[in-house]
Amino acid sequence: MAKRECPRRGHDSVEKEVLGILRRAVGEYVSGGIMSRRLGVSRAAVWKAVESLRKKEFRIGSRPNLGYILVHGPRHIVGLDIETGLGVSAIGKSVVSFDSVSSTIDVAASFARNGSPEGTVVVAESQTGGRGRLGRRWSSPAGCGIWCSIILKPAVSPRDAPKLTLLIAVAVARVLSEEYRINARIKWPNDVVVRKRKICGALTELVAEQDAIRYVIASFGLNVNQSPCMFPPELAETATSMRIEKGRRLDRPEVLRSVLREFDAEYAQFRNDGGVRILEEWRGLSCTLGKRVRVELREERVEGVAKDIGGDGSLIVETRGGALRSVAYGDVTLLR
Amino acid sequence: MAKRECPRRGHDSVEKEVLGILRRAVGEYVSGGIMSRRLGVSRAAVWKAVESLRKKEFRIGSRPNLGYILVHGPRHIVGLDIETGLGVSAIGKSVVSFDSVSSTIDVAASFARNGSPEGTVVVAESQTGGRGRLGRRWSSPAGCGIWCSIILKPAVSPRDAPKLTLLIAVAVARVLSEEYRINARIKWPNDVVVRKRKICGALTELVAEQDAIRYVIASFGLNVNQSPCMFPPELAETATSMRIEKGRRLDRPEVLRSVLREFDAEYAQFRNDGGVRILEEWRGLSCTLGKRVRVELREERVEGVAKDIGGDGSLIVETRGGALRSVAYGDVTLLR
Repeated sequence: MAKRECPRRGHDSVEKEVLGILRRAVGEYVSGGIMSRRLGVSRAAVWKAVESLRKKEFRIGSRPNLGYILVHGPRHIVGLDIETGLGVSAIGKSVVSFDSVSSTIDVAASFARNGSPEGTVVVAESQTGGRGRLGRRWSSPAGCGIWCSIILKPAVSPRDAPKLTLLIAVAVARVLSEEYRINARIKWPNDVVVRKRKICGALTELVAEQDAIRYVIASFGLNVNQSPCMFPPELAETATSMRIEKGRRLDRPEVLRSVLREFDAEYAQFRNDGGVRILEEWRGLSCTLGKRVRVELREERVEGVAKDIGGDGSLIVETRGGALRSVAYGDVTLLR
Repeated sequence: MAKRECPRRGHDSVEKEVLGILRRAVGEYVSGGIMSRRLGVSRAAVWKAVESLRKKEFRIGSRPNLGYILVHGPRHIVGLDIETGLGVSAIGKSVVSFDSVSSTIDVAASFARNGSPEGTVVVAESQTGGRGRLGRRWSSPAGCGIWCSIILKPAVSPRDAPKLTLLIAVAVARVLSEEYRINARIKWPNDVVVRKRKICGALTELVAEQDAIRYVIASFGLNVNQSPCMFPPELAETATSMRIEKGRRLDRPEVLRSVLREFDAEYAQFRNDGGVRILEEWRGLSCTLGKRVRVELREERVEGVAKDIGGDGSLIVETRGGALRSVAYGDVTLLR
């Protein structure tokens, strides 16, 4: 048998490249012949890839003589769909999607321990054991939100890790404000709020030696398509979703791609400046600074005016009498 | 069949209790009848437990009319042997021993994630992928040392976690000095040294959210019975063992029990005072303070006199000109 001229390409890889070409064509048809030549595979292989994508709920139109067109991707979140053509330098190069997991944090941590590279993203349509801060439960019903964890391996001191929580909140708040015109603000340390209602929570899990980070799992849960009645009763007054704010359902894969792109850009900056800019951006988006706050710590309660955020991500509160307290953790209530 | 009067006890539990009784008897015989009554099991069950212990290399003597006596435990490290009669409040309540693991850190981390309680200890006779600081390899040949990881779940801020590394070093240095009359000192941050040679390395791996510790794996590798020729050539001049220092082989299980007891006491103190006393003890045992040092950081080198250790475990160096630098990590060389 004659040797094949080009190395045989895996079916998955052809599929991804076909999807990439169709996506870059934005609303234009691409002929099977062009794709076949560009990828160095047979036209049958292109057709097979298209069929396989269709089975994964990519809507791909075709017309004789014109070829194929990507009408839209799946309505739910599919790793291949998210990662293809994302155009990022690190975050989201590989996106692994699940129907249901206990918690994306735990899955991502297990990937990280087993050597998955920085920027690997784990998303799930639903979580059976979604975690919020301090082990609290996080409501994550199927198909409504984005439940996502990202593996990071920054070469910075563990001391700088708390800034990564700020970074997630900044990335989400910016996407909501700039791309969706939702007036999102950040409530220290890790909530994104709209009209004082929580729309997104962020959480970082750090694994470190005394002096070096092994990895960080940066996670967020973003409420996208919940209608008011879909929140558990105890959250009805304090939570919101993009759908509630915009009055229409949104395309979750598109939202996720935007957040990952923004996160990618912010993270590149973080690696350059150690978080200097992220603190500035955080200050600009904060709804906590300048307000009277009460912070519940483990064993006491601090009241005063939130003055600033420290280089380590802590909140600096001016208490009565003018003393400054740096608070590393705690639940914040904004007072009147 | 008549109901048994007392609930049936698992064989493992009888074995542990028999071992506990024999150990507490220190050099005295205990009759099978007494054990049988005390434990509420048949004499045959006592005999079976003794046989099972003998198979695990416990040397147990027996004489008619007198009963059983524990001559000595196994020469190698066996979980049951270490944990029985240790008399601790938390650390070492459960000790899991392995012949060989990749790294006790990874095994303990996996136990911690799956809910093993605080104080669980993982030890191995050898490690195929023993880790030192910053992912460096750690030489851990079979049967010579103690390679040990301890699960901790302290309710303190992640900021206080670095003190736990100091705590391990203090516990080991105290046992060496006080019980074995080996003049051990601590070299910042995590080495125990004798005559400037490393005898023990300590390492903590922290898993934390921004504001709460999920767990810490506190690990140490202690050189016990290596002879000089057993160190890899690159360590020949810079490492030592208890055997080299004392001129005789030592009983590793006994050494481990002492370290766990000391660690247990220090850790109880740490939970009470947040690490105040541990810093004092560390200062008293340090061979770094007051010395001219060079610290290699990631991107620079700091030279000066090591003045103190900060509340966060960092080294405070007075550089030329009198400025104080707080160094959180790095390799220290003591200068002349």
